[in-house]
Amino acid sequence: MLESTELAARCARLIRDVADFPLAGVGFKDINPLLADAPTFADVVEHLAALARAAGGVDLVAGIEARGFILGAPVATALGVGFLPIRKEGKLPGPTVSASYDLEYGSATVELQPGNLPAGARVLLVDDVLATGGTAAAAATLLRTTGAVVAGLAFLLEITSLGGRARLDGLPVDVILTVP
Amino acid sequence: MLESTELAARCARLIRDVADFPLAGVGFKDINPLLADAPTFADVVEHLAALARAAGGVDLVAGIEARGFILGAPVATALGVGFLPIRKEGKLPGPTVSASYDLEYGSATVELQPGNLPAGARVLLVDDVLATGGTAAAAATLLRTTGAVVAGLAFLLEITSLGGRARLDGLPVDVILTVP
Repeated sequence: MLESTELAARCARLIRDVADFPLAGVGFKDINPLLADAPTFADVVEHLAALARAAGGVDLVAGIEARGFILGAPVATALGVGFLPIRKEGKLPGPTVSASYDLEYGSATVELQPGNLPAGARVLLVDDVLATGGTAAAAATLLRTTGAVVAGLAFLLEITSLGGRARLDGLPVDVILTVP
Repeated sequence: MLESTELAARCARLIRDVADFPLAGVGFKDINPLLADAPTFADVVEHLAALARAAGGVDLVAGIEARGFILGAPVATALGVGFLPIRKEGKLPGPTVSASYDLEYGSATVELQPGNLPAGARVLLVDDVLATGGTAAAAATLLRTTGAVVAGLAFLLEITSLGGRARLDGLPVDVILTVP
């Protein structure tokens, strides 16, 4: 496994800061240059999978729409487990369960299909960025109220000044790099 | 590599037909039970990657938002290449290029960031379902006008009665299963 500080430094160089996106006053982290860089994308996926293996493994990876799909789906195949999409309202055919939450810019609802989530499944929840933690907290609550065990959460990047980790109920959190 | 008729039959059992979703009169193919089935999800990814390898390989995988991310990203890591998201309007920070098209239910615009697409890159375009082909044709046109070579398109499922393949300009198309 790669030394993680080397990987973190490489990721930092491939994440682009974009001011005022999607709204004025919001600072956006554009991870797409990283995804386009084959070795770094592969190393991120393998590193997140290795952390999940080291923590005892999981039965399923849940990815949060839409960038959480891009990281979560290959982490699932690397771990040899299935993938569960957690989507915005109205995107999944029923039966679904949902949870609403406040977002950095607005509010939103996340949904999942409980029929694809075996009772008691140990789930790794994946997204690209841990910011305020609103989306991740809502997704974790939704998984738990549906009978799953949230084994942990994995992110590429944590923006520590936004305090998202404090909203995650002490669940195990893995990140590849942090920025203030 | 798996015999593909066996894989196609397995996929068919794990794709759920949903009537009147997202709108009345539209028949929706729900691939989420398949994604949750670890061996089938892994075999689909490996099969699409193997087809791309057999056709000479690619430099990059482009996935169409949002289900194309779930299939395309692990195909990219299986092939050892980077991933380019093709997204709905307004989701990508600039600079972007865009193309509009008619959809089975409404119209839409797709965008990509040319800065993450090396000139002359051979790209595999991935999505879950080939239906009318509008989205895929717009994405392929967008890739080509941006200087990429569309090496091929790969889908889990083709709905042949909707005639989408005819809109893809004779580009190579791989699918795992077809339904009328």
